[in-house]
Amino acid sequence: MRGIHQLTPEEIRILIRKGRWDKPTAGLAMGYAQANLVILPQKYAFDFLLFCHRNPKPCPLLEVLESGQYRTKFLASDADIRTDIPRYNIYRKGNLEATVKEIKNLWKSDFVTFLLGCSFSFEEALLRSKIPIRHIEENKNVPMYITDISCKPAGSFHGPLVVTMRPLPPDKVVRAVQITSRYASVHGGPIHIGDPSRIGIKNLKKPGFGDPVTIRKGEIPVFWACGVTPQAVVMRVKPDLCITHTPGHMFISDVLNEELAVL
Amino acid sequence: MRGIHQLTPEEIRILIRKGRWDKPTAGLAMGYAQANLVILPQKYAFDFLLFCHRNPKPCPLLEVLESGQYRTKFLASDADIRTDIPRYNIYRKGNLEATVKEIKNLWKSDFVTFLLGCSFSFEEALLRSKIPIRHIEENKNVPMYITDISCKPAGSFHGPLVVTMRPLPPDKVVRAVQITSRYASVHGGPIHIGDPSRIGIKNLKKPGFGDPVTIRKGEIPVFWACGVTPQAVVMRVKPDLCITHTPGHMFISDVLNEELAVL
Repeated sequence: MRGIHQLTPEEIRILIRKGRWDKPTAGLAMGYAQANLVILPQKYAFDFLLFCHRNPKPCPLLEVLESGQYRTKFLASDADIRTDIPRYNIYRKGNLEATVKEIKNLWKSDFVTFLLGCSFSFEEALLRSKIPIRHIEENKNVPMYITDISCKPAGSFHGPLVVTMRPLPPDKVVRAVQITSRYASVHGGPIHIGDPSRIGIKNLKKPGFGDPVTIRKGEIPVFWACGVTPQAVVMRVKPDLCITHTPGHMFISDVLNEELAVL
Repeated sequence: MRGIHQLTPEEIRILIRKGRWDKPTAGLAMGYAQANLVILPQKYAFDFLLFCHRNPKPCPLLEVLESGQYRTKFLASDADIRTDIPRYNIYRKGNLEATVKEIKNLWKSDFVTFLLGCSFSFEEALLRSKIPIRHIEENKNVPMYITDISCKPAGSFHGPLVVTMRPLPPDKVVRAVQITSRYASVHGGPIHIGDPSRIGIKNLKKPGFGDPVTIRKGEIPVFWACGVTPQAVVMRVKPDLCITHTPGHMFISDVLNEELAVL
């Protein structure tokens, strides 16, 4: 068998569906968009959809399925959202209750599925332009920080913007803005460049999630909206039930990152 | 008093609110975005929001208000959606029942308001680049056509894409694509260039709505998604009640067209 890194998105989803891959998806199916998953009962769906519409940088909607639908149409034609993600987190009233490999037994006819863009897409574009990504160089998880910027609330959903940080040499900052701005449906351009205290971040060495990375002398910290934001916001609302992917264990789509670019 | 064309968006909205302006809004508050209005009872709101998300070219959402809310936040800070539009169409079960100057008496606490982008925004940008717009030159309504392209359905909402057509000299087509592509939240780039029969349009001289315009020898018809699409789609669903603006009688916002540009 070819190695996992040679497989197509569909082939990887079949492995995942059969329970034969339950590890993180970073680096798999290079070139194809991966997506964050949020499943909520219908009674929360309008407010959450509106929240995503109002906050497109942290919550870039790639696909939303109607109530009860578990087959994707846009991101892949054959995928089953109940089985095709390596690991799921089950939250009840905001508490993580379990981590599981499939959710067929949990599925209900009023579940609404949201698939949101992920920064893997623009990181690939940055690397293609020889812009270094420190957490990849250091084989770490990207550092994430809770800012003092509020998302625009929608119905019962509200909360702070969570950001990722990538330190860049000053001569790479403009190009990084230009490249990531093309990917509006996967977080888009940065939300802040430079002084972390201006967005309420006290200490870059102590991220809220993920790992701290080395910031070399003269490098500029650049901040992008992060897909952890919608999950953090959902947890505040403490819905009866919410199912997400387990961080890093994403949905792998058949859509090329390049197809998501604005221009 | 200054002429209507010298007034700010807020000043015009106050005139409209007082019932002193109930005519079309084309050419008013130049530079500021105008918006299409759709108001639906809550029970239709998730499906319609999802329809707009899936069909961003014909249905570019500028602002959506929570159930019962009639004050805008993003497009203007002071506006009252029940009074600040010159004329409203009241549809019951898909039939036009009345055209009125305000809807205070009709307002219900489960009404959800959708404001959608309008091609006035990109037409201004085209004119600034010396790209001629025939229906403006001929003082007509833009010609609109029903295509054989289906919108992506969402819940009970479905229907064909409606487009506007502007004939352009061949040497202006590329620039027109570039300019309108910047305005992704107001219909964006064209959906088709050239042969109308490829999108199911039989006769350019017989538009489905609006007026036919002169197409000079050698000119290329260029087609953009049209804001009539969501209204046509809503009419198919025949909701108990739907309130829209009367065509041409738009909501005038405080947001500059330039603020809506992608890059």
